[in-house]
Amino acid sequence: MMKIAVDATGGDYYPQNPVSGAVLAVNENDDITAVLTGPESEIRKELEKHDYPEGRIILQDAPEIIGMDESPAQAVKNKPRSSIVVGLGMHQKGAVDGFVSAGNTGALLAASAFILGRLDGVIRPTIATFYPTVKGLGLMIDAGANLEVKPEMLYQFGVMGNIFARDIMGIETPRVGLLNVGEEKEKGSETLKKAHVLLQALPNFIGNLEGRDILSGQADVFVCDGITGNILLKFGESIPDALKMLLMGVIKKRQLDKEKAGLVISLLEEAFTPFDYQRVGGVPFLGVNGISMVGHGGSSPVAIKNMIYNAVKMAESNINKKIVASVA
Amino acid sequence: MMKIAVDATGGDYYPQNPVSGAVLAVNENDDITAVLTGPESEIRKELEKHDYPEGRIILQDAPEIIGMDESPAQAVKNKPRSSIVVGLGMHQKGAVDGFVSAGNTGALLAASAFILGRLDGVIRPTIATFYPTVKGLGLMIDAGANLEVKPEMLYQFGVMGNIFARDIMGIETPRVGLLNVGEEKEKGSETLKKAHVLLQALPNFIGNLEGRDILSGQADVFVCDGITGNILLKFGESIPDALKMLLMGVIKKRQLDKEKAGLVISLLEEAFTPFDYQRVGGVPFLGVNGISMVGHGGSSPVAIKNMIYNAVKMAESNINKKIVASVA
Repeated sequence: MMKIAVDATGGDYYPQNPVSGAVLAVNENDDITAVLTGPESEIRKELEKHDYPEGRIILQDAPEIIGMDESPAQAVKNKPRSSIVVGLGMHQKGAVDGFVSAGNTGALLAASAFILGRLDGVIRPTIATFYPTVKGLGLMIDAGANLEVKPEMLYQFGVMGNIFARDIMGIETPRVGLLNVGEEKEKGSETLKKAHVLLQALPNFIGNLEGRDILSGQADVFVCDGITGNILLKFGESIPDALKMLLMGVIKKRQLDKEKAGLVISLLEEAFTPFDYQRVGGVPFLGVNGISMVGHGGSSPVAIKNMIYNAVKMAESNINKKIVASVA
Repeated sequence: MMKIAVDATGGDYYPQNPVSGAVLAVNENDDITAVLTGPESEIRKELEKHDYPEGRIILQDAPEIIGMDESPAQAVKNKPRSSIVVGLGMHQKGAVDGFVSAGNTGALLAASAFILGRLDGVIRPTIATFYPTVKGLGLMIDAGANLEVKPEMLYQFGVMGNIFARDIMGIETPRVGLLNVGEEKEKGSETLKKAHVLLQALPNFIGNLEGRDILSGQADVFVCDGITGNILLKFGESIPDALKMLLMGVIKKRQLDKEKAGLVISLLEEAFTPFDYQRVGGVPFLGVNGISMVGHGGSSPVAIKNMIYNAVKMAESNINKKIVASVA
């Protein structure tokens, strides 16, 4: 039986979506118990709307709430009875096998690093993100946790991303690439050049990648600093709306009839499925001494359920032991 | 009369496209004379295919050719009789008012900085690039010239980009923004935080921008380091092909008939017009003591012509005097 703590006050639609997601997970899977952390009476009221196997959802009171815009370090320090601090604290003590949340990413990163601590040998914990490509989902790492990086950190991002892509995303031999301004190994800043040399120790390192290699899926793991990763992450999320706007302009200009316009829009929406962040079940903090995942604020119940499953997968695959062995 | 030197051996389609572009420019505009630099007999042969007003196209022999993949610094040093070195040398001596090329960007940057020198007060010359948004073209600066930046450099990129957007792109009061991981001024690396403070001296600085603000056109000038800018530039160029591939997958899956599939593809292609780099007439090196522009290797004759016009516009607007006054 795997026990996963679920932040019932995280995201834009709480407590509904976290509660529904936990209920979906325990109903679908006999080996999972969910521990909902949040203001007990409020969560209980929401939970009463659902059916689930007795004892497979546990409530853990955490009356304080961390807002989406609160300063991460302050929030973690000043709200010890928040769902994030309570949930991660339970995990740190071994009471649960992992923690998932659709809450404030900064607060989750700060709390995960502070409460769980770093894995042996890891310089800095990192956050990875799934990235849509024409060949399926890739992994971009770091996605905004580390804005100033050293070559050794980029190397470790590659090592951790490789293990996650292989064991959790199921890519047998992930192609790990380093985002850079040119393909040749002598291209880039001093940091990127040194990182390239270090990454060559990974047998499946495929070298430098350029901006054009991301959407075309030239790698499975895209290694970069947190500024580049964060800008690309949000840029990617903005593509569907921007393209829809440009296309609507053309539809209007050509005065297409309703039927044809509707067809075009529905095709475009289907083509953009890989860009839908709500489909994906959260992304991991890697390098922390535990299992901690964060989902988009807009996570649906299915996204929360998938995030719980990913946390279980991470715990079962002993990903952290493998990371410690690989960075040693 | 404005005299512009045109690299007749630059780009993927030389001497045809540079020669055609120069011919288009002098035929369309009585105030322009073009000086074609390259192997004289080869250029003369190409030129004989065209009609143009006598004396308005001049040949300047430059028998050495710098390849697209040559090491920039080496190429400039070892090939003093190349079209790039000869053309920029003429400009430095005052024989022409500007130089344009669709050749090796790295070699052009190195040669422009080395032969023309820096403008007074400019820390580092930079390369800007046009960027498509739903509101029209924006300017991204730096696009790959400076991979390691200081806050003062980012500030100067903002100042130079602002002047270029206003005087050459014709945007009355350009909105200048700093690409970052969050909107709040305390977000980002130490370099970005300090750059934010410096940029506040620009009355039209609108603050930090996130990745989602680029395609949506939340600014006219996007200030960033050369790694971020270069990755975003090439990422942007890759969007049309990636989206076409995703859409073709949906068209196939839904078994659309030829007529409907053709309609969708043609709409998409029209929507992607802003992403067509061949339409845009080159981008400037800013901060060098002269007018030097570079176009995409695949530049069409019309793109070369537009690049010549932009060089004329830069020379006529005294952009460099304004930059010197603004960074002083």
